[in-house]
Amino acid sequence: MKTIKIGIIGAGRIGRVHAENIAKFVPEMEIKTIADPYMSEETVEFLRRLRIPNIVKDADVILNDPEIKAVVVCSPTDLHAEYAIKVAEAGKDVFVEKPVDYRIDRVKEVIAAAKKAGVKLQVGFNRRFDHNHRAVYEAIRAGKVGKVNLVKISSRDPEPPTIDYVKVSGGIFYDMMVHDFDMARFLAGSEVTEVFAYGAVLVDPAIGEAGDVDTAVVSLKFANGAMGVIDNSRKAVYGYDQRVEVFGSEGAVMDENDTPNNATYYGADGTSSSPCYKIMWDRYTMAFAAEQRAFAEAVINGTETQVTGEDGLAPILIAAAATKSMKEGRPVKISEIEG
Amino acid sequence: MKTIKIGIIGAGRIGRVHAENIAKFVPEMEIKTIADPYMSEETVEFLRRLRIPNIVKDADVILNDPEIKAVVVCSPTDLHAEYAIKVAEAGKDVFVEKPVDYRIDRVKEVIAAAKKAGVKLQVGFNRRFDHNHRAVYEAIRAGKVGKVNLVKISSRDPEPPTIDYVKVSGGIFYDMMVHDFDMARFLAGSEVTEVFAYGAVLVDPAIGEAGDVDTAVVSLKFANGAMGVIDNSRKAVYGYDQRVEVFGSEGAVMDENDTPNNATYYGADGTSSSPCYKIMWDRYTMAFAAEQRAFAEAVINGTETQVTGEDGLAPILIAAAATKSMKEGRPVKISEIEG
Amino acid sequence: MKTIKIGIIGAGRIGRVHAENIAKFVPEMEIKTIADPYMSEETVEFLRRLRIPNIVKDADVILNDPEIKAVVVCSPTDLHAEYAIKVAEAGKDVFVEKPVDYRIDRVKEVIAAAKKAGVKLQVGFNRRFDHNHRAVYEAIRAGKVGKVNLVKISSRDPEPPTIDYVKVSGGIFYDMMVHDFDMARFLAGSEVTEVFAYGAVLVDPAIGEAGDVDTAVVSLKFANGAMGVIDNSRKAVYGYDQRVEVFGSEGAVMDENDTPNNATYYGADGTSSSPCYKIMWDRYTMAFAAEQRAFAEAVINGTETQVTGEDGLAPILIAAAATKSMKEGRPVKISEIEG
Amino acid sequence: MKTIKIGIIGAGRIGRVHAENIAKFVPEMEIKTIADPYMSEETVEFLRRLRIPNIVKDADVILNDPEIKAVVVCSPTDLHAEYAIKVAEAGKDVFVEKPVDYRIDRVKEVIAAAKKAGVKLQVGFNRRFDHNHRAVYEAIRAGKVGKVNLVKISSRDPEPPTIDYVKVSGGIFYDMMVHDFDMARFLAGSEVTEVFAYGAVLVDPAIGEAGDVDTAVVSLKFANGAMGVIDNSRKAVYGYDQRVEVFGSEGAVMDENDTPNNATYYGADGTSSSPCYKIMWDRYTMAFAAEQRAFAEAVINGTETQVTGEDGLAPILIAAAATKSMKEGRPVKISEIEG
Repeated sequence: MKTIKIGIIGAGRIGRVHAENIAKFVPEMEIKTIADPYMSEETVEFLRRLRIPNIVKDADVILNDPEIKAVVVCSPTDLHAEYAIKVAEAGKDVFVEKPVDYRIDRVKEVIAAAKKAGVKLQVGFNRRFDHNHRAVYEAIRAGKVGKVNLVKISSRDPEPPTIDYVKVSGGIFYDMMVHDFDMARFLAGSEVTEVFAYGAVLVDPAIGEAGDVDTAVVSLKFANGAMGVIDNSRKAVYGYDQRVEVFGSEGAVMDENDTPNNATYYGADGTSSSPCYKIMWDRYTMAFAAEQRAFAEAVINGTETQVTGEDGLAPILIAAAATKSMKEGRPVKISEIEG
Repeated sequence: MKTIKIGIIGAGRIGRVHAENIAKFVPEMEIKTIADPYMSEETVEFLRRLRIPNIVKDADVILNDPEIKAVVVCSPTDLHAEYAIKVAEAGKDVFVEKPVDYRIDRVKEVIAAAKKAGVKLQVGFNRRFDHNHRAVYEAIRAGKVGKVNLVKISSRDPEPPTIDYVKVSGGIFYDMMVHDFDMARFLAGSEVTEVFAYGAVLVDPAIGEAGDVDTAVVSLKFANGAMGVIDNSRKAVYGYDQRVEVFGSEGAVMDENDTPNNATYYGADGTSSSPCYKIMWDRYTMAFAAEQRAFAEAVINGTETQVTGEDGLAPILIAAAATKSMKEGRPVKISEIEG
Repeated sequence: MKTIKIGIIGAGRIGRVHAENIAKFVPEMEIKTIADPYMSEETVEFLRRLRIPNIVKDADVILNDPEIKAVVVCSPTDLHAEYAIKVAEAGKDVFVEKPVDYRIDRVKEVIAAAKKAGVKLQVGFNRRFDHNHRAVYEAIRAGKVGKVNLVKISSRDPEPPTIDYVKVSGGIFYDMMVHDFDMARFLAGSEVTEVFAYGAVLVDPAIGEAGDVDTAVVSLKFANGAMGVIDNSRKAVYGYDQRVEVFGSEGAVMDENDTPNNATYYGADGTSSSPCYKIMWDRYTMAFAAEQRAFAEAVINGTETQVTGEDGLAPILIAAAATKSMKEGRPVKISEIEG
Repeated sequence: MKTIKIGIIGAGRIGRVHAENIAKFVPEMEIKTIADPYMSEETVEFLRRLRIPNIVKDADVILNDPEIKAVVVCSPTDLHAEYAIKVAEAGKDVFVEKPVDYRIDRVKEVIAAAKKAGVKLQVGFNRRFDHNHRAVYEAIRAGKVGKVNLVKISSRDPEPPTIDYVKVSGGIFYDMMVHDFDMARFLAGSEVTEVFAYGAVLVDPAIGEAGDVDTAVVSLKFANGAMGVIDNSRKAVYGYDQRVEVFGSEGAVMDENDTPNNATYYGADGTSSSPCYKIMWDRYTMAFAAEQRAFAEAVINGTETQVTGEDGLAPILIAAAATKSMKEGRPVKISEIEG
């Protein structure tokens, strides 16, 4: 087995998740260094237990280390593009967390930097690697649904984020539905060309006061003629709810939420079973691991990544169009946004 | 048990279905007379076996019979309103098949006639009486989902209608999605105020040439703030597919298609089970019976019908708005249509 | 459509069920006469509503009516054999409710009488006609499970019968598991050759005091080498629970209980859905109708019935062996019983 | 977090599985040494990648290391007892793979040695830690099924073991159903007092020639009055099939097999989904990890293990009784075996 040494920039929640998954599940990648200027003692202890040899404050240690061939960028969102570009310029393959950036130009700069440096670029749309969504995708690609006519995605969080986060997140289309825009393109196998968005404040008035909506229904048109629809809610009391359905000329394929167990109780009042997972990290544990394995494969085998820079850009364009559509009360073409 | 004598106007497909269901499952109603000017020998034989005493050509036999207290109107669509008004004017309670009429004014005239005559008016939106959709409805009304935030409806037919039918049907929103508009209002417990419609020809180009679409995604806004989305396709190879889902502040409730049996086969290549029903009459057998039982109850107990004239009008208004929205590429308010 | 005139002997619960199902769902059979010496006014009213022309006290009216070609025997159990023999001797086809009789010799006399008279004989094992169990059966016969290795049947009632009934029923193996013995043979496609029975009083001590058990597990050996296991309980709080599973060299096939609806509720505490049917007549409504349609087919087309006299005898032999096995604490061969 | 250093004796398949799981999922345990006299280069490489510092041939290195507080015994079965006793005598807590030994006396010696030394003893019945079976267990313990009346277990392997293995395994009751005997006791919360076993050769005649059966149905009686039934087959073409069902006075609880994904395909010929796992290690991945976490907890917190030495003994007694029952064609009491 060929292995490579990697670095991780950022040891916040997602950085620690990637570090743990790589240590446990990606034997092809050896984490040599992780860098974050603000690590608690508990974080350092956690990283030590993963046997990461270098736990440092300065990302330059990674950028300047010729032994490190690939870097996973888990910095705060506003530094994603900056670090991704630096990593590319250092001639190292880049995994960058989503969103690459909310600014379209900035995303394009990252893509350009990776192209110029001839390095791999993978964007962290982890849901593409979920075992259930992936099985839907593979059924489509295997021709089981024939020509795709409709893509339906439900995506609901167990709890809204903090109002502080809502204020800076760019809105529900950028920070939440962006995942579903990616999933829609992934499943349809075609680009979104136009969107129409309805949004409403149904969960918490404070979200409205912060300038966002908490519930949204977005219709999509794809270049191949198919249509799509996505619904989002910031709060599903029964847990993290993410299901996809693709309907085509030869059938339909859909998935369900996993649950912590499948025991079913038959009682006098009815039949009951476990609720969905209530925590995102539990829902997508293995998807996070699988995306890092995929990154390792692309890096080691020199193949294209499964989520390219362009895949990082497209959902941002759709989010911009959806935001505009909701504000202006009309369908918006992606070409209006691309300029 | 109190019973009443009824008449049926029209012995086409739906007329025979209602006749059979009433004979078998609605002991409160005794079919005294059925009238249709064009009955095959087979139809007469079928009706005789149901032991209907009077099988006649002229609807006036029913309209003029003082013993008949209620009439089920199953005439061709373009005569629905005319007969409904005549029945009302004859002082008899009216059950009229959907759509009452495609012309809004005409529907209003039917409503007015029933009001003036002081008779019951029920419109044939049979799906409200389906055991699964009804269970979803009852869960909502029992408060299990809390405040309704989203209503989602999938509705797909096993086969497109003939092109001849497509040419005169008024389009997918009037002849197919009209059922879902009714279901959306029924489940949301609120009026639709605005719609946005995307449509496409993905099943059969001939449908497009006939001026219609065969696949449609419609977003809805309700007066109570909730949102909805409906998808329709003229062709699902796996059968008649109709599922609803309602999401709210306290949970979600959804149903599945019934299947002819629930046996599951576990083989080396995977697990398999029966497809959905492929024929509408099999899918909704008991719903048709239940709507007639409900009509009998309203008539005998003097209570309001479960699908009023206004319930017959609203989906036509929404269909008109959806048609306009698709044509003009913009959301359309119901108030624009009502004028 | 060829039709025949039939008679029904007995207008108790099961007699009324058959009368109603034949009237509604078996157009090939016209009930000319129903006979029962003890009918309440309500029963007579019920039968009148089914438009049965002759409602009489004396079964001889049926036996002596040359126009009546087939008779459904729904008398008290201890008169099943007597009436079945009389019907056969009158040259009419016989449908006799299960059990034909608890006495093996008596069952054999019924079989002999039907053979001698050259009339059809069908025994009322209605579960063979249930849509789910039938789908399992058809999957097996279509070779989907390959060679049958195991047959598993769960069968649990919502409530125990009255203690008075327990005292005269012959015990759980005769009055309850007898259905499952039939189902086991039906699914295995082979005769039971040996049984081992465990029984216990776990539901109600009064059942034990009446000399019976209320819970039983019976292992079976089939002539073709397959094995089987049946479990019975007199009380399942969640409703009428009957599931079958057949496992073979090429796969397994199993079914589930139907439920009144399939709506699923997702709430904060978990996912819940409707309980099973709690009333046997709801669970097997269509199975009762289907067995009468099958009887009509056999009678009209002159084909063998789907549940022959021998099919009526075999479960009684197995019940006798199971009773002996439980008492003597050892496996018992059917050949020991047959003598 | 308190941590301890442990050793592993044996680096065969199960030894490597435990090593990997402990390294990944049990941060409380640090594997200091693994010992096996016959390790391939690939095995050594695998263990190195887990960062186990000492990879040795001689188990004495572990037994004599005062820093090692607990040992996981994964030796060949016939050395389980010997090593378990040595570990106990060295004053270290013992985890020993199942079966402890096929000889009842030998199992008792292990129990006695652990008691005498005052060390923890856990036996490797990993299925108790499966998330689905555990959820069933917890529902029972929470009182949801009330008094347990019936325990049903299906357990079928995807492929029979080699004939060489069959010849030395002690038979299906010892090497396969022993897991289900443990599960039956675990779920029933009561000891098995008597068994009756039917067995047959239905999968492969060579298994019969080797003196074993490949299909078995065993009925159980429990001390608390409940009954049970277990079925085993050496070959289920659809994968590793293990389901449990517990029925009681207040309801029933059952589980299903997990599948690699839950995507469902709706096609013209029916609905299909993924088969079960076909490899035991995939089926029970997390159960193996969970049993080691449980061992770590018992060792670190000084609490009783969740699978005690007595829990290791009981299934061997039941297996002996089942073997005797099948041979002698009669039910056998466990007390007959215990002597």
